[in-house]
Amino acid sequence: MTDAKFDVLAIGNAIFDVLVQTDDGFLARHEMPKGSMSLIDEARATAIYRDMGPATEMSGGSAANTIVGLASFGARTAYVGKIKDDQIGKMYAHDIRAAGVAFDTVPATAGPATGCCYVLVTPDGERTMNTYLGAAQNLSPADIDPAAIAASRFVYLEGYLWDPKDAKDAFVKAAAIAHEAEREVALTLSDAFCVGRYRDEFLELMRGGTVDVVFANEAELSSLYQTSDFDGALKQLREDATLGIVTRSEKGCVVVSNDGVVSVPAFPISKLVDTTGAGDLFAAGFLFGLVRQAGYEAAGKLGALAAAEVIQHIGARPQVSLKQLAEKNGLPV
Amino acid sequence: MTDAKFDVLAIGNAIFDVLVQTDDGFLARHEMPKGSMSLIDEARATAIYRDMGPATEMSGGSAANTIVGLASFGARTAYVGKIKDDQIGKMYAHDIRAAGVAFDTVPATAGPATGCCYVLVTPDGERTMNTYLGAAQNLSPADIDPAAIAASRFVYLEGYLWDPKDAKDAFVKAAAIAHEAEREVALTLSDAFCVGRYRDEFLELMRGGTVDVVFANEAELSSLYQTSDFDGALKQLREDATLGIVTRSEKGCVVVSNDGVVSVPAFPISKLVDTTGAGDLFAAGFLFGLVRQAGYEAAGKLGALAAAEVIQHIGARPQVSLKQLAEKNGLPV
Repeated sequence: MTDAKFDVLAIGNAIFDVLVQTDDGFLARHEMPKGSMSLIDEARATAIYRDMGPATEMSGGSAANTIVGLASFGARTAYVGKIKDDQIGKMYAHDIRAAGVAFDTVPATAGPATGCCYVLVTPDGERTMNTYLGAAQNLSPADIDPAAIAASRFVYLEGYLWDPKDAKDAFVKAAAIAHEAEREVALTLSDAFCVGRYRDEFLELMRGGTVDVVFANEAELSSLYQTSDFDGALKQLREDATLGIVTRSEKGCVVVSNDGVVSVPAFPISKLVDTTGAGDLFAAGFLFGLVRQAGYEAAGKLGALAAAEVIQHIGARPQVSLKQLAEKNGLPV
Repeated sequence: MTDAKFDVLAIGNAIFDVLVQTDDGFLARHEMPKGSMSLIDEARATAIYRDMGPATEMSGGSAANTIVGLASFGARTAYVGKIKDDQIGKMYAHDIRAAGVAFDTVPATAGPATGCCYVLVTPDGERTMNTYLGAAQNLSPADIDPAAIAASRFVYLEGYLWDPKDAKDAFVKAAAIAHEAEREVALTLSDAFCVGRYRDEFLELMRGGTVDVVFANEAELSSLYQTSDFDGALKQLREDATLGIVTRSEKGCVVVSNDGVVSVPAFPISKLVDTTGAGDLFAAGFLFGLVRQAGYEAAGKLGALAAAEVIQHIGARPQVSLKQLAEKNGLPV
């Protein structure tokens, strides 16, 4: 294993967020399952947008949010995701590079527009997402640069990659290159409905050793093992993954590995504004802890801190330096 | 004078805001006059954007922010401004219509992209704006619908319209139609540097009766009369405009008219975050007071309330219902 150029390289659906604060009636009217991510086609995107209030836009995408969080902590980072060379794609590329992330995926010059997600934030702070994949549909194995993968300490992949048709091949290719180079591969299960769509494949990725580290929230874990028995599901996760991290919102997180089980409390917040990016930023902090070999408890605290920052404002990316925030809170950076 | 269909119709440069929190070093490095609006060409736009951090985007434009504020108070509103039919233009049109504003200006199908403004917000909350006019350059008298103007109780115009080459003709055409229909015409002086560019023309608009109501902040008033003597400038404004409103940041505003001089304090705030839109939203509240014939003092309070809301978050448009906010504060709606 040679020295890593990047601490973490993330691969995901490159998605531009269009965020709006709304009420539960809007979700009901459009039959949206609250708190989840639904894939939408262009016709539904048009119908939803037409009915939405004035919005705020910013770059998003689950793994992209995580990698931007890692960069904010001070990690060396890279991102792979497909945009189109349109106005939104140019803003997307600007934002991720301006965050300090290496981003060299060649944009599409034809085909659908850069992907976007209509994020409806209800007064309880919950976010409900509607994703038009757009150009992200065209991420393919050709977008995977073996040298960049082999030069990354961790490769972080989102379960959402199972939605676009060729992205799973890119995912598997990247994981194989990473393991060949003795790197570690992490996966987030992304969304309970996503787990429902690809349960067997996700379990096969874990059991077959394609992924080493698995991030899930309670709903995703419950969907993965089709049980509401949290402790039972946790036990299964411990068998299926080298390292498993389960987030439980205000109850903090549980880390399971061969070393045992570690629980870490959530970080206190003043006001929940928008949960968009909570899981993404938790993963950023936790992975940063792994990069710094800070131990699971410190990693959990770093994850909790980053999640707490992002849920206290609109949007899925940090608004302050997470490095400075961690220092202020006496956490390792 | 027939019944008005719209309480206020606003005409301005349709500009999409790209906002970023930065430090004073950025302004110094790019030689930006802090707190002002500078016009930039495509080359400079590229250079600034390349150096900017990750951004948040939302629709902006001075008079557009004002009209959205008026709609949020519950006024019947319309907007005239030139976008292109590109991705950003589509978001722009969505946002203003979703706010309840009638917006029927035909988008450009060729020529420069929808205009945008790089807004740099420094830690003191001050905003420094760099505007690439883009499609807004092509607003022309043909975009003025005489019926819509004649059906509007107030026509509100921004001084920035003097920058694009044909927009001033649109401005003058609209003012003439409005007066023909016995409506009132209001103007915001927009920016001290803008006043510097068009001082004589703005004075001529006021003295010649093209505009009736004039909004200015202290710096713009000082630039208009080329004096640092506030009381002297105020006296001149009282002679030159039927109604003049001067905003003084945390010192509130002063209203001058034939009826005398009225001072209204600023509305208290918890934390100054971003002054972008402060003047625009003040004008929204004040105009709403005029629409409701609430008297200058109540109008000033409505303006102060709307300005206080917008400077406590990032971005130039209200994040809450101004109607509800006014009701909560015992102000007329």
